[in-house]
Amino acid sequence: MFADLDDVRRVCRSLPVVDGEVVARIGAREAVLTKPPGSLGRLEEMTAWLGGWQGTARPRLGAVQVVVFAGNHGVVAQGVSPYPSDVTAQMVGNFASGGAAINQLARVAGGRLDVVPVRDLAATADFTLGPAMDEAGFLAAVRCGAGAVGEGTDLLCVGEMGIGNTTAAAALCAALFGGSGADWAGRGTGLDEAGVMRKAEVIDRALALHGGGDALLCAMRLGGYELAAIFGAVLAARMRRIPVMLDGFVCTAAAAPLAVLAAGGLDHARVAHRSAEVGHARLVGALGQVPLLDWGLRLGEASGAALVVPLLRAALACHEGMASFAEAGVSNRA
Amino acid sequence: MFADLDDVRRVCRSLPVVDGEVVARIGAREAVLTKPPGSLGRLEEMTAWLGGWQGTARPRLGAVQVVVFAGNHGVVAQGVSPYPSDVTAQMVGNFASGGAAINQLARVAGGRLDVVPVRDLAATADFTLGPAMDEAGFLAAVRCGAGAVGEGTDLLCVGEMGIGNTTAAAALCAALFGGSGADWAGRGTGLDEAGVMRKAEVIDRALALHGGGDALLCAMRLGGYELAAIFGAVLAARMRRIPVMLDGFVCTAAAAPLAVLAAGGLDHARVAHRSAEVGHARLVGALGQVPLLDWGLRLGEASGAALVVPLLRAALACHEGMASFAEAGVSNRA
Repeated sequence: MFADLDDVRRVCRSLPVVDGEVVARIGAREAVLTKPPGSLGRLEEMTAWLGGWQGTARPRLGAVQVVVFAGNHGVVAQGVSPYPSDVTAQMVGNFASGGAAINQLARVAGGRLDVVPVRDLAATADFTLGPAMDEAGFLAAVRCGAGAVGEGTDLLCVGEMGIGNTTAAAALCAALFGGSGADWAGRGTGLDEAGVMRKAEVIDRALALHGGGDALLCAMRLGGYELAAIFGAVLAARMRRIPVMLDGFVCTAAAAPLAVLAAGGLDHARVAHRSAEVGHARLVGALGQVPLLDWGLRLGEASGAALVVPLLRAALACHEGMASFAEAGVSNRA
Repeated sequence: MFADLDDVRRVCRSLPVVDGEVVARIGAREAVLTKPPGSLGRLEEMTAWLGGWQGTARPRLGAVQVVVFAGNHGVVAQGVSPYPSDVTAQMVGNFASGGAAINQLARVAGGRLDVVPVRDLAATADFTLGPAMDEAGFLAAVRCGAGAVGEGTDLLCVGEMGIGNTTAAAALCAALFGGSGADWAGRGTGLDEAGVMRKAEVIDRALALHGGGDALLCAMRLGGYELAAIFGAVLAARMRRIPVMLDGFVCTAAAAPLAVLAAGGLDHARVAHRSAEVGHARLVGALGQVPLLDWGLRLGEASGAALVVPLLRAALACHEGMASFAEAGVSNRA
């Protein structure tokens, strides 16, 4: 699987689609529950989405998997982050000892947390000088991501950790959707104005070097190992009809090549939240998504993806537990 | 307590305020946790809000109370709802047998659900003909609401059920914040265009009849028993420094007189979600609130208020459980 780039492209041309019959059955049940039609809004949308991809009118959230892919970035040499690259490994240690935000959020979500240091946290090449990854390294990261998706997963929440990765994500977005570094570069973990300008200029140099090529080549030349792993995980989930909750800017950018390679390629995925990172609003717009939350998060780590899981549980609880008008003896509208 | 309208007005002039020292202590801890400063966005805001009102740097959500106040409305005689008034009592029965949306959502929230049929579901007077309530009836409903707030409540989620009550809420909003029936009337449980126009015209007749008077008189003449009970509960919570989660349009409108009577009168309350009911966006704007969710809900029953509770639990879990940079051995920024 994913032996070469063309193999990935072939898979993207024959993706499974949502089960419309299940979606219709879920809609028919919603219509008789004791509420005005449609009055639970996106709760109803989420039930239909989960069920349509899981292929069952009784969607499940018994096995929620939260995966955080970690990676390092050669472009950090260009001064694009206020934190040193060491922090990536240190935060992987923090995940292991339970002290990070995602440890708490995965627990509240009732999910299993897996942390995957991609390619042993070796840094990609500085993409202002050459491609971030060669084909072998890129494909190894894609396969690593695909292999991380657990057996029997009902919902996959994906996220990342990697000092410098908002620069990679911004460069990838610009290559996929147009615009310059200034359109996509944001503060990341906390750059000042001058830092954001330097970051935009770094991205512009990378774009000049790596112009052209399809979405997969863009991901290889401008992305990163953890971004490639996210792409692989989201693609593997699609092949198995597992719904995916995407986190913020970096995570959405990592998955975006799938939407460019295949129409509807991200139909099985939802963007959990609108990140405070400036490029995210533009990116979710380009993907035609409406994020589920707008809480000003800009942490990554799958934090936003895990945060919405209890809302999905609420959606299923309503769909499963509510009485119909007939069962409850409530008069329906004339 | 609340023996007459002036007594209510007196209470509103001496409301307790947030504990700024606690808010500062919570902020100081946030600053050393292993994340870029501020990167958990509204999760951080929610922790500070809960702690500031509870008066502790270790805010609690052990005792979450969800209260649904139910009431009937004489103005239903004017054809403002597609459902008959009987549905109010039938839904109270549905709450009792566990078949409504709020039963499921309160369970997911880990909250206790109390349903209070205000004034035994007697209808208010048709406010196109005279005041909806007399002073005695209004104050009885306010006291009923105040008395419903439980001992030791850490967070109060309020909501309502009452056929016809979006008409009352819209009329009250117009009286408090200006505008005509057309500015505030929405589809409620599912009116068509002609129905919304009729509803707006009904509201305009009520406004012409009851113009003038302070916010409390507006609530008495144009509101409803369950709206008055919500006002009483939100005011009683403030007196006891209990944070309040407001639900959608009707609930926010019911609490709004407190913001008009006292500057910062709703500082202890948050609007849980932006309802799909058209007047809600205008109302939350007038109150200077930014709803926590925008999921297109338009059910009432405290559904949106209960829905956000797991997000507050997530906020507290992060604040409690995360390691500091020093504890985790993670390098902070230079």
